Amino acid sequence: MLSQNNISVCFTTDQFKKYADERSTVVIIDILRATSVISTAFELGIEAVIPVQTVKEALTYKNKENHIIAAERNTLKIKGFDYGNSPYHYINSDIKGKTLVLTTTNGTKAIHLAKSHKVITASFLNINIVAKYLQEDNNDIIILCSGWKGMFNLEDSIFAGAICEKLLESDKFSSKCDSMLAAIELYGSGRGNLFNYLSNSAYRNRNNSDSVIKDTHFCLNPTIKSNIIPIFTDGKLIKLKGY
Amino acid sequence: MLSQNNISVCFTTDQFKKYADERSTVVIIDILRATSVISTAFELGIEAVIPVQTVKEALTYKNKENHIIAAERNTLKIKGFDYGNSPYHYINSDIKGKTLVLTTTNGTKAIHLAKSHKVITASFLNINIVAKYLQEDNNDIIILCSGWKGMFNLEDSIFAGAICEKLLESDKFSSKCDSMLAAIELYGSGRGNLFNYLSNSAYRNRNNSDSVIKDTHFCLNPTIKSNIIPIFTDGKLIKLKGY
Repeated sequence: MLSQNNISVCFTTDQFKKYADERSTVVIIDILRATSVISTAFELGIEAVIPVQTVKEALTYKNKENHIIAAERNTLKIKGFDYGNSPYHYINSDIKGKTLVLTTTNGTKAIHLAKSHKVITASFLNINIVAKYLQEDNNDIIILCSGWKGMFNLEDSIFAGAICEKLLESDKFSSKCDSMLAAIELYGSGRGNLFNYLSNSAYRNRNNSDSVIKDTHFCLNPTIKSNIIPIFTDGKLIKLKGY
Repeated sequence: MLSQNNISVCFTTDQFKKYADERSTVVIIDILRATSVISTAFELGIEAVIPVQTVKEALTYKNKENHIIAAERNTLKIKGFDYGNSPYHYINSDIKGKTLVLTTTNGTKAIHLAKSHKVITASFLNINIVAKYLQEDNNDIIILCSGWKGMFNLEDSIFAGAICEKLLESDKFSSKCDSMLAAIELYGSGRGNLFNYLSNSAYRNRNNSDSVIKDTHFCLNPTIKSNIIPIFTDGKLIKLKGY
């Protein structure tokens, strides 16, 4: 019988310690918006992303050559920063060859939480190439939803379902994980109109500004696709070679 | 504008500290099987249920007059105990007027975790009366899924969805809780055939014996209904008066 790799879905960063095994590949998800922003920035030519945990740390890069700094807390861009957590801050901006220093409410924290594992980031921009890579990589997988301040959120869970559905199309994976089953069900319910599906979600309740709505449309149905897999190495995300 | 009470759904006992507020009514769910057993036992005439956290503590009640003791770990009844965590251990058994001392893998632990709040237990046996009570009680509500060893499980989540759907039929509640939305979606997907819906769940994978399958059918579609609301007072669950 074919030996199958395991898939787990961890709905919240608070629970990651129960899933961590130092061995699995961890796929970080923060669909609204950090991992979508990361995919966007790479696709538009950024060289590396340094995820930092505090605003203070991000500011230490302020005048460093070839670096741009971005900070978001509670959905809003922080004063003093050129960039925030909106993909549109990067589109039509000259970021080619630069390094992005990024701190966000949830996503960048999740990357640091998992960094003793092999860590990659995923979004609807690069979902296909990430699924292909995971199918070829022959390793167990933990899908880590960044959630909201350690709690469950709907948008990361549906993306977890979307990627797990793709992974299970191959016979390389199995799972005994109820949160994976739930994620696939949730994605199945929302499929076709994820924006409406999230209309009552906590994220949409927190900030329903025109710009966040525009970002949400982009992150759920991106007009840019990416074949880049950001992988965390030596304190920064770089492009995984060979993909 | 009518002041509405809040509903939160906490998917795992590990996360309860994020929801706890000492003020809300906490509804404990352990559908397979502790809270279903508790409803069954009350409906069949038990006077009180003492939920204890350890097998050792349960054993101290072994020869106490008018007490019966029950213990389960990892779905199995523990040696030396007359009763386990199956509703059928209580059906056709003479338990009228007795006190049940019960320890289970998840459910009894959840009760203790929440005991600084007003705590009641719910199952598909007493879902209607619990929803009616909560609608009349005018308090915020935390639905606490016992889960499995601190992790998300599907069966408690769908029950959370079932009860939240009933609560939202009145205009007395509102919620900004993504886990509530997810629970309602999951219940909606499984509605009509919850047994099949759970066919790939971790619970069913752990123990698929004939007796557990029989229990699962009972807990999801109980042939006994109950208008009793077990409420935790002075270390034990008793019947809430007036319902």
